[in-house]
Amino acid sequence: MNKIHKIEIQSGAAFKLKKGDILKVIDPEGEQVSDMVLFNAKDLREKISSGKTLDFEENLLISKGNFLWSNRSQKMMKILEDTNGRNDFLLAPCSPETFQIMYDNQNYHPSCFENLIRNLSPFGIQPDDIPTAFNIFMNVQFFENGKLSVEAPTSKAGDYVSFQAQMDLVVGLTACSAEDSNNGSFKPIHYSISPSEK
Amino acid sequence: MNKIHKIEIQSGAAFKLKKGDILKVIDPEGEQVSDMVLFNAKDLREKISSGKTLDFEENLLISKGNFLWSNRSQKMMKILEDTNGRNDFLLAPCSPETFQIMYDNQNYHPSCFENLIRNLSPFGIQPDDIPTAFNIFMNVQFFENGKLSVEAPTSKAGDYVSFQAQMDLVVGLTACSAEDSNNGSFKPIHYSISPSEK
Repeated sequence: MNKIHKIEIQSGAAFKLKKGDILKVIDPEGEQVSDMVLFNAKDLREKISSGKTLDFEENLLISKGNFLWSNRSQKMMKILEDTNGRNDFLLAPCSPETFQIMYDNQNYHPSCFENLIRNLSPFGIQPDDIPTAFNIFMNVQFFENGKLSVEAPTSKAGDYVSFQAQMDLVVGLTACSAEDSNNGSFKPIHYSISPSEK
Repeated sequence: MNKIHKIEIQSGAAFKLKKGDILKVIDPEGEQVSDMVLFNAKDLREKISSGKTLDFEENLLISKGNFLWSNRSQKMMKILEDTNGRNDFLLAPCSPETFQIMYDNQNYHPSCFENLIRNLSPFGIQPDDIPTAFNIFMNVQFFENGKLSVEAPTSKAGDYVSFQAQMDLVVGLTACSAEDSNNGSFKPIHYSISPSEK
């Protein structure tokens, strides 16, 4: 049984994975988004790319069987399982400006961007290095006219997505801080790491 | 009458704009895509972000009236006119690997990525700095199941998109090199710059 790591509400974590390791990201209570960013542990300038992933996978909806690709056109992770089946790879992590501009909230508000950089900065990652995240459990609906709508996640308590690292990685992971993305309440995110069997 | 600059087939250009300048990107023959990337001329670490733009504009289809946003949540350009009305902001610029992986072409092939970096490197921009481009005239259809399909551009000879710079910018622009994006043939791209009226 692998240890369950807990990310508290509106916070984040960062850690390394070795090639072959399996990361399981769990929504323990349901309806909670987790933003994930990836960096090549051996060269942090290589990182997850939504544009490359949507291009190579030829799909907006990235789930079981798809790969997450880097800006250098390399496979970073393979999605092994996805018990929920709805994730987003369109929208940037919520940031302080998200709440100022979209929510008209001029006061301090926690954000995925802040939680990513707080946890990733010890690895040498700077704020401008944070790319568009793979937003696990995030339910962004799109319509023929292009309109986007952020809806409540369809994930139930215990749903999970598991990923296998295709290279040595630095991973940033959050329990998302945005009201609209999480049906109005904030819950934790759990994760576990299974070492590769060599 | 502003000077018309010509980007030859399967090539690119890079130039500076001052805040307020108007850039007009023209498809002179029709059915030709132009990839555009933007950097803050005063701090190149700030650059165009698909994730921030799709988030703030709440739409996959970015056209007249929309803004192009940076990774720092600042407005970089406003789209003033769009006579065609179909652009893409999902897919990364075609790169050498695009042709190896998606087209199974192991030989040399020109690419937008190469043409962007060749023209932007004199400004101090490195390969890993190239973000997902705003793909002018690119026609990527998306379906309810998420499937993406690159179709012939709907642009006719003389169609154009005009943009007003919201900050001082370094711009990279191409005449796209990918067969599928341009209905099988390669054409030039034209552009003009109107200085801001101060």
